[in-house]
Amino acid sequence: MNFENIKKDSVVLASLGGDRRNEALKRISLIIQEKRENIKKANETDLNENRNIPVALYNRLKLSDSKIDEMISGISGLIELDDPLNKTLLATELDDGLELYKVSVPIGVIGVIFEARPDALVQIVSLCIKSGNCVILKGGSEAANSNRYLTELIKEATAGLVPEHCITLLETRENVKEMLSFDQYIDLIIPRGSNDLVKYIQSNTKIPVLGHADGVCHAYVDQVFDESLIKKIIIDSKTQYPSACNSIETILVKRSEAAFIGELMESLKAAGVRVNGCSEIAKKFCIPEVSEWHHEYGDLEVSLKIVDSIDEGIDHINKYGSGHTEVILTDNNESKIKFTSLVDTSSVMVNCSTRFADGFRYGFGAEVGISTNKIHARGPVGLDGLVIYKYIILGRGQIVAEYSGEKSDRFKHARIDKKFSI
Amino acid sequence: MNFENIKKDSVVLASLGGDRRNEALKRISLIIQEKRENIKKANETDLNENRNIPVALYNRLKLSDSKIDEMISGISGLIELDDPLNKTLLATELDDGLELYKVSVPIGVIGVIFEARPDALVQIVSLCIKSGNCVILKGGSEAANSNRYLTELIKEATAGLVPEHCITLLETRENVKEMLSFDQYIDLIIPRGSNDLVKYIQSNTKIPVLGHADGVCHAYVDQVFDESLIKKIIIDSKTQYPSACNSIETILVKRSEAAFIGELMESLKAAGVRVNGCSEIAKKFCIPEVSEWHHEYGDLEVSLKIVDSIDEGIDHINKYGSGHTEVILTDNNESKIKFTSLVDTSSVMVNCSTRFADGFRYGFGAEVGISTNKIHARGPVGLDGLVIYKYIILGRGQIVAEYSGEKSDRFKHARIDKKFSI
Repeated sequence: MNFENIKKDSVVLASLGGDRRNEALKRISLIIQEKRENIKKANETDLNENRNIPVALYNRLKLSDSKIDEMISGISGLIELDDPLNKTLLATELDDGLELYKVSVPIGVIGVIFEARPDALVQIVSLCIKSGNCVILKGGSEAANSNRYLTELIKEATAGLVPEHCITLLETRENVKEMLSFDQYIDLIIPRGSNDLVKYIQSNTKIPVLGHADGVCHAYVDQVFDESLIKKIIIDSKTQYPSACNSIETILVKRSEAAFIGELMESLKAAGVRVNGCSEIAKKFCIPEVSEWHHEYGDLEVSLKIVDSIDEGIDHINKYGSGHTEVILTDNNESKIKFTSLVDTSSVMVNCSTRFADGFRYGFGAEVGISTNKIHARGPVGLDGLVIYKYIILGRGQIVAEYSGEKSDRFKHARIDKKFSI
Repeated sequence: MNFENIKKDSVVLASLGGDRRNEALKRISLIIQEKRENIKKANETDLNENRNIPVALYNRLKLSDSKIDEMISGISGLIELDDPLNKTLLATELDDGLELYKVSVPIGVIGVIFEARPDALVQIVSLCIKSGNCVILKGGSEAANSNRYLTELIKEATAGLVPEHCITLLETRENVKEMLSFDQYIDLIIPRGSNDLVKYIQSNTKIPVLGHADGVCHAYVDQVFDESLIKKIIIDSKTQYPSACNSIETILVKRSEAAFIGELMESLKAAGVRVNGCSEIAKKFCIPEVSEWHHEYGDLEVSLKIVDSIDEGIDHINKYGSGHTEVILTDNNESKIKFTSLVDTSSVMVNCSTRFADGFRYGFGAEVGISTNKIHARGPVGLDGLVIYKYIILGRGQIVAEYSGEKSDRFKHARIDKKFSI
């Protein structure tokens, strides 16, 4: 792989106007529509080669007509969004004829490692083109044929509009290893997938990594103000998609509300959810005792614990959580304020399902991943997380010697309402 | 060191109001004023123990009355700045009674390693308190007494206002090593100092690192439209503070302007700057030839190269530069547009000195460092780079099952003009 060429092309891509990037997106959506049958054929090869994978994986791998429709409408949605680039984020008059601008620019070259879901490839490529970033893709190997064909189509559709190395598909793990070593050419790695994959990548590259290793999300029952509402939210947060990262793994119930636990456990049982408890609950209800609280079941199973106070609940979440998504169930305003302010996590829900933590549901159009990082981008990452900025000063010969020591008060530092242009 | 306690306290600090954080800053400035003589005494101990360090280092180490005045006025300036926390960055109505907010919050725990400059300690602590971050400090060992005393004073002044572990001073390299291993408790490391230090840290921690290893900055002479202006900017960019990261190391001259080189070299010589050339220039002017273009002299020495075109100049900068600061000298608008758009760097100057790349000069009040990263924060990093955000959804019992599949078009996704509150 020649990663240096990708870096070079990223500079050219960054300088293209928004119309040109939108035109590239439009051509991608047209070719997907046009070649729909061929795409399905390539996907069928993958499906035939992977008849024995679990049903959930098989369903993700499969490109139905409705998924192809969603790809196309997803691209249309992206085209309609404002251009995230060349926005003047700050304009300051430093002195007469000396103006500072902060202008949004792409990050550069982004490597994305994702699951065996060919529709994710189209979504990731579209987000990267819209945000002016070159993308290096490595999809799950089960989707090899679909990914190869989709990449070919996208390259064909965008040839001449965007630089040649705008999109690069890696096909082997060796390629991924190689990519992780090129920190001089690659600016960001976004791994989507298993805990082990993300941890492996975090430990094996100097390139910044954006994503989440695990999703240990919590529901905290502060006050049983509406039994059916609370049960409904907990069941949805656990069962609507049990393997999703934003599904809950632990339920914390305040001691004052302990009378609700029996009823809650019956609802969980009825929804097919196995419950493990803290020692107190385990004894009382004769269920298995939890040995590790930082644990992601990723299945219809949950941990349940009694806490003495909201403070103990918050401490538990901050200690054992993964900073992904947590929900408080209460009608008490003080508790809401305390929880939203003290829980250190990327998404906090008040009386609604943790499953809402998602780029589409947040209205970002799409997401390139969900981040539990504490810098750059947190939570579902859309276009905003794919840009950075550059400072530009327009001067007329000013030098710092004229603004140093006692002369440093010459600076005006006045905000101006002006967009960057030359 | 008990880093877990610092993490715990960071959550409490994050939840304090802006008035309280400002009050803490005010008390710090008062105690510095009050104990001015004792501070100077502690500093004298450092100065006496380091009589043999180079003059430049000695001057940085020395706390004069005017530096103490600057510390105090710097804190006053910070107090006056808007609170960077609890800003509603985005508010979206997802559906009736289901509102998404994006609210600015501190990053958490930040480790800063800095040079032997006691005034930097006060600046860094003030920026961290203003932005609600717990800070772990390790200053240059030459300033040990000053740093210890200043930390004591700050802790005394802020006791009861901010949590106990808000400020932690590390005194040994072993402590730093230990800190780098605690990625579960520390969210960001900002190393200021030598190239080797920054590279060592980048290679020895999983914690994100913000900063720059080197500053290989360039001046590109595109058009000699005003000889004295161009010479003035180049001399200032090199000599105003030769060891600063934003000083230039390489001058690129477009071949069409080559006639200017002789005159430029004389000016450089008169300013005490040694010049090394590309093979063509080295031969012509009998000066040493440059062997490595990615090189930071940090002294009164510079590399000079002829390039055939602006494209070659930009390629050279993108290949050998460090993404710190570059300047174009020209009166040609097309060249300005090309350079500002294609040079991949954190700060681009048009006809003014590269030395302007600095938090104070940019009007950020102060800076915690300068970053050449491509994510989170780039260029001089002020308060903006010390905050991140949290998503909060306020609901009334909504679950995702009611917004899935065909029902996913129930989302309104309407921007609302509302600040987050409960």
